Amino acid sequence: MDFALDERAREFRERARVFLEEHVMPAEPVLDEQLAASPHEWGVRPIVRELQAEARAQGLWNLFLPGENGAGLTNLQYAPVAEVTGWSPRLAPAAFNCAAPDTGNMEVLNDFGTPEQKDRWLDPLLRAEIRSSFCMTEPDTASSDATNIATRIRRDGDDCIVTGRKWWSTGAMNPDAAIFIVMGKTDPEAERHRQQSMILVPRDSPGVRIVRPLSVFGYDDRDHGGHAEIAFDEVRVPAINLIGDEGSGFAIAQARLGPGRIHHCMRALGMGERTLALVRERANERHTFGRTLAEQGVVREWAAESRIQLEALRLLVLKTAWLMDTVGNRRAMTEIQAIKIAVPRAVQTIVDRAIQVFGAAGVSADTPLAELYAGIRSLRIADGPDEVHLSSLGRAELRV
Amino acid sequence: MDFALDERAREFRERARVFLEEHVMPAEPVLDEQLAASPHEWGVRPIVRELQAEARAQGLWNLFLPGENGAGLTNLQYAPVAEVTGWSPRLAPAAFNCAAPDTGNMEVLNDFGTPEQKDRWLDPLLRAEIRSSFCMTEPDTASSDATNIATRIRRDGDDCIVTGRKWWSTGAMNPDAAIFIVMGKTDPEAERHRQQSMILVPRDSPGVRIVRPLSVFGYDDRDHGGHAEIAFDEVRVPAINLIGDEGSGFAIAQARLGPGRIHHCMRALGMGERTLALVRERANERHTFGRTLAEQGVVREWAAESRIQLEALRLLVLKTAWLMDTVGNRRAMTEIQAIKIAVPRAVQTIVDRAIQVFGAAGVSADTPLAELYAGIRSLRIADGPDEVHLSSLGRAELRV
Amino acid sequence: MDFALDERAREFRERARVFLEEHVMPAEPVLDEQLAASPHEWGVRPIVRELQAEARAQGLWNLFLPGENGAGLTNLQYAPVAEVTGWSPRLAPAAFNCAAPDTGNMEVLNDFGTPEQKDRWLDPLLRAEIRSSFCMTEPDTASSDATNIATRIRRDGDDCIVTGRKWWSTGAMNPDAAIFIVMGKTDPEAERHRQQSMILVPRDSPGVRIVRPLSVFGYDDRDHGGHAEIAFDEVRVPAINLIGDEGSGFAIAQARLGPGRIHHCMRALGMGERTLALVRERANERHTFGRTLAEQGVVREWAAESRIQLEALRLLVLKTAWLMDTVGNRRAMTEIQAIKIAVPRAVQTIVDRAIQVFGAAGVSADTPLAELYAGIRSLRIADGPDEVHLSSLGRAELRV
Amino acid sequence: MDFALDERAREFRERARVFLEEHVMPAEPVLDEQLAASPHEWGVRPIVRELQAEARAQGLWNLFLPGENGAGLTNLQYAPVAEVTGWSPRLAPAAFNCAAPDTGNMEVLNDFGTPEQKDRWLDPLLRAEIRSSFCMTEPDTASSDATNIATRIRRDGDDCIVTGRKWWSTGAMNPDAAIFIVMGKTDPEAERHRQQSMILVPRDSPGVRIVRPLSVFGYDDRDHGGHAEIAFDEVRVPAINLIGDEGSGFAIAQARLGPGRIHHCMRALGMGERTLALVRERANERHTFGRTLAEQGVVREWAAESRIQLEALRLLVLKTAWLMDTVGNRRAMTEIQAIKIAVPRAVQTIVDRAIQVFGAAGVSADTPLAELYAGIRSLRIADGPDEVHLSSLGRAELRV
Repeated sequence: MDFALDERAREFRERARVFLEEHVMPAEPVLDEQLAASPHEWGVRPIVRELQAEARAQGLWNLFLPGENGAGLTNLQYAPVAEVTGWSPRLAPAAFNCAAPDTGNMEVLNDFGTPEQKDRWLDPLLRAEIRSSFCMTEPDTASSDATNIATRIRRDGDDCIVTGRKWWSTGAMNPDAAIFIVMGKTDPEAERHRQQSMILVPRDSPGVRIVRPLSVFGYDDRDHGGHAEIAFDEVRVPAINLIGDEGSGFAIAQARLGPGRIHHCMRALGMGERTLALVRERANERHTFGRTLAEQGVVREWAAESRIQLEALRLLVLKTAWLMDTVGNRRAMTEIQAIKIAVPRAVQTIVDRAIQVFGAAGVSADTPLAELYAGIRSLRIADGPDEVHLSSLGRAELRV
Repeated sequence: MDFALDERAREFRERARVFLEEHVMPAEPVLDEQLAASPHEWGVRPIVRELQAEARAQGLWNLFLPGENGAGLTNLQYAPVAEVTGWSPRLAPAAFNCAAPDTGNMEVLNDFGTPEQKDRWLDPLLRAEIRSSFCMTEPDTASSDATNIATRIRRDGDDCIVTGRKWWSTGAMNPDAAIFIVMGKTDPEAERHRQQSMILVPRDSPGVRIVRPLSVFGYDDRDHGGHAEIAFDEVRVPAINLIGDEGSGFAIAQARLGPGRIHHCMRALGMGERTLALVRERANERHTFGRTLAEQGVVREWAAESRIQLEALRLLVLKTAWLMDTVGNRRAMTEIQAIKIAVPRAVQTIVDRAIQVFGAAGVSADTPLAELYAGIRSLRIADGPDEVHLSSLGRAELRV
Repeated sequence: MDFALDERAREFRERARVFLEEHVMPAEPVLDEQLAASPHEWGVRPIVRELQAEARAQGLWNLFLPGENGAGLTNLQYAPVAEVTGWSPRLAPAAFNCAAPDTGNMEVLNDFGTPEQKDRWLDPLLRAEIRSSFCMTEPDTASSDATNIATRIRRDGDDCIVTGRKWWSTGAMNPDAAIFIVMGKTDPEAERHRQQSMILVPRDSPGVRIVRPLSVFGYDDRDHGGHAEIAFDEVRVPAINLIGDEGSGFAIAQARLGPGRIHHCMRALGMGERTLALVRERANERHTFGRTLAEQGVVREWAAESRIQLEALRLLVLKTAWLMDTVGNRRAMTEIQAIKIAVPRAVQTIVDRAIQVFGAAGVSADTPLAELYAGIRSLRIADGPDEVHLSSLGRAELRV
Repeated sequence: MDFALDERAREFRERARVFLEEHVMPAEPVLDEQLAASPHEWGVRPIVRELQAEARAQGLWNLFLPGENGAGLTNLQYAPVAEVTGWSPRLAPAAFNCAAPDTGNMEVLNDFGTPEQKDRWLDPLLRAEIRSSFCMTEPDTASSDATNIATRIRRDGDDCIVTGRKWWSTGAMNPDAAIFIVMGKTDPEAERHRQQSMILVPRDSPGVRIVRPLSVFGYDDRDHGGHAEIAFDEVRVPAINLIGDEGSGFAIAQARLGPGRIHHCMRALGMGERTLALVRERANERHTFGRTLAEQGVVREWAAESRIQLEALRLLVLKTAWLMDTVGNRRAMTEIQAIKIAVPRAVQTIVDRAIQVFGAAGVSADTPLAELYAGIRSLRIADGPDEVHLSSLGRAELRV
């Protein structure tokens, strides 16, 4: 047992950290200006393109992806880098081409795509020339129970016809999101976990209609491409757009979930660290009732609790990454579920306390806290609310 | 000891409830449409005017105000009405002309204003012809410590010169907010609680500059007139605009706080009840893993906890109102502080759990939950974070 | 609505308070000495007899019992008296002849007993000449589900034969506990809530065997008569010992529960108040790191939170008492369930924090805290764990 | 970074586990019998001697002690063994001669003792022929602030005279506890952390008086030698009994704390695991309302939360051990403080929930839960309440 990061992980973390300080943090106000200047546009702003060019030049690119298409980092090596990107969730993940949902979509194409699908969609994604969306959740279905999916994918000769309605398709408001991976049922009569398939639906296919953007606590996440409700009305695509075999949709979704969840958790730790850094600064400069906030018992207690939580949960995230590297994603499912529950919840509490420390500034746009809060709060719902995962984890724990 | 509401309170509560059901709830989607149609306007939308006309016709008007200018309700009689208005916080309080910050401002004018001040500002406020703002909090001062206020009110002959910067002046983005009550220091050398005064500053006074709107978790509260940062740059107003004596600002602020806080708490209970009603509906219609949510243990537990909290805290709010009516606001300060801490926090938890029940819909604009959350969350910061009040209450409790 | 106690309630509360201060508190060390002097005896110590004589002389006797056999107090009038007795739970309830389980047993006899049963058992109980026990819970049955009871009561001519095993029969280790009210099934084939009956079993009946005492966190509650496991092996008693009709056991148990639960809650509030009083004293006299504990933020925060909880929950308890008085126990069941959950839990937290304030003294016998903790903790399990009540309350709340 | 235990650690853990199953668990009821048979004796019962003989024969002996006097395990290698012993805290640590406070005392003698002191006291302790106590905490001093110590150690020629009063001297009721390490002030005028010294006081020294045993939630911990209050009245011992230099007492105490705290945390994890194992068993065999407890949502949720907590905190404990091994105890102080706060608190919650699962059996002596609770609860107070450590950790975290 050894708790020291290896050489390569330390090197990449340090490079990412320097990039964050030198390029990303100074870019945050620039992004705000660019957003203010084009309040109705969806999609990547120029500053992100600049950061991407710089990051790519530095080799800080596609680090999330194991294997030859990425930078060859293990999950354990990538974890500290991902944490660094969590300090600036609007900019850093995109700068490194490590932003959801593109990461998960690239993984799916990388692991399950045909050579043609890779040429057509994976390559431009790896170069950040296009973006993508993942169309899984449906408005009228409890998304925690994937077997309920109502979207249909019907074979019709060499084509497939996709019909259904999706929402919370992150990034899909962005016109650059050229390709949608859509989950639907190809055979509702098949065995419960063999009914679903995934299919690639180009954005410009006839019958695809972006219904509306969805907001999260008043934020539209415009710079990330937002979250769309999308209607698929008899959308015809060639059957070669199916990913993997017919009926493999559930299995592919499961495979996609593990890395997706751990990446979220890694970044969440960085969000927590940034929040603590903001608190540290504020607590030392703000005076009330004749003392700095840093001298108030309750602020100290919060700082201590936050530190303990971050230290313990980081180790659990790292162990999970190590398990994924050594025994595989499937055998790490318990730990993946554990961090999926525990990390966002802890970071939510950390951000919430920080808001109390900042007072009114904390809920406004003058600090990143309120937007961080909205983001981390949503993670407790994304792909199933905490309670579903707790119940599943508890059932496993009580098994005799 | 008698836990039954009196006849008059029951009658007004029932009338308010019927008004809510018949007029306010159906008006909610109308407000959404009107907001969508004029996304850049600040201020009251036509539907609110319509509701106001109807409410006034029904005698549901200025119920918050004790004495002859209001409806003659005691705090205890008003409490259940205010709770009803909490079910629709964007519409119902305004419909009854019982919305903050106008309520507090009307109280100040009613209790401390000169006849001329009342003619000029109170009367149009009582008729909802104008709106108002309260300019207390400052960007660079810990707002929980009112003695720090940096804004200066300087006498110059028969005039006063106001200079300073305020923020979180609720309602002030609304051009109809014709009058600002500004708190500033008239004598920084006086005894600690005699340094401050309040003064009426008409919106159109030279030197008043609305700097920018502030947002709360991504919401700009446009329909309420938002929250403004305002610069007062050598603003000259006649000295007769001072409210009460010079040096009485702190005392007036204290007097204003009691009713303001209890009104917030009363409405918050209504927000909690509406949230529970939404959960009830959702929990019975949504199925997951073969059962309705209402049959899931965790949802039941949340419903029970919410019910217990609302019942216990409602009684504490009502007792506080009764104390204000019987022994006066000052001697009810402990209880006012207690509900100020406990009620928003409890309702925040209730709304947060409801969001988990609703999943992604809960953080979006498709339910009122996320916006309710932002509102109730802010109350835990408004006029001092919970922790300041806890510390003060604890000090009193430990006094020997 | 009126939050002032009536004249009679205030008078009795004051008399109880004076009695507590003058007689009960000074008796606590005496009890400790008497317990140390006879460590192996079960049952009432001489000091309790002395207190009872004095209390009875002062008319502070059987106050819990409505109607002519008691002092004629309503539940609402009794509540503040019961709270006073909670300050010294080992002595004060017994001193006033208001201690569980005798209170509940007297109520059962008073409400459902025949004249003969009253003569034989109620009268000596009302005079505190004997004590009693209630034999309901069974070792192998989930006690939260009363329909599972395994004890059998079989008719045999004019007799009944009782066979079964009970535990947590509070008070039964005391040889003065002359009479046991035993719940058993008379007709396992009857409708679910008509299978059970209650029967009076004198302690000295052949076949009654006290198996062993049970302890609560290391305490044997010796002075209260402890908690016994009892075997009933073909115990023959006359059928006239049945209480009420055959099959009415469940209904009688339900009737007994309401007052029992609210009495526990009332006393629990007193336990919370005493704990706070101890904290207040300690926090002002103990110094650490150059300040009194009362000046430490966390101690203040705890004091404030405790005060808020006690104030809110006391009102809920009082309202519940008022409902029992005005609309009856059955229609107050929701509130009874709510306080049953909320009050012990809150007081547990208050005591737990107090232990932190006292440090090592807090877990020892040098303060009453650890024993208070054990007592209040057990209430969260007694007649069904919190979770069963939460689930039931939640189900009712979610009903459409 | 590598999360696999090394070969040696795995081997010792497995051997400890087998020993636990084969020898310790079956010995628990035997201990209960031996305790019941000699209820007034303090000290080690015969079964413990038997276990010690067997453990020593198997080489499971003094594993806690680094270096040649122990088994040569690192802290990281010892951690999983210590966790195993936590499954049976009354027996397993003693069986392996790894029980507090002897472990800490042996460390002090091993690291700071003279050869004579080692011969005289360390050797018999290493062979478990005697036991020892550590006399630090004082009744009238806030024990979280070690500089307050009132006990005096006065030089008088070649002797030292010890005068003071100590309490919570664990193990000291046991007559086999032949030696006390006493902390006192040798020079109250010296620099704040150079005033204290430690001195070896044989139990049979004239002037040593065992005042009384202290109890923890009703438990006297008789089998462990209990917890004593001890008066030292002008106790004369040779000055060569001083440990280390005069004035080094604070530094030695600090050195002793690190291992002591982490050992407690390691065992606490084992207590948590045993509790979960008990819950697992109970939840599958107990039925209520037609389902097993394992099928109830709330029990599943608790099991999941417990699992998450144990996994995350175990990693933090292991990392702390690794830091102690690699950079030394002093540089691991932040982590030691973090686990000291977090682990007992988490395990307390786990045990508390388990009590709810077990109902009345949970608070009685029929399960180990209530006694585990008392033990783990006390850890939150031992050498400073959580709040002192939180404040210290928070201050460090907020340092700029």
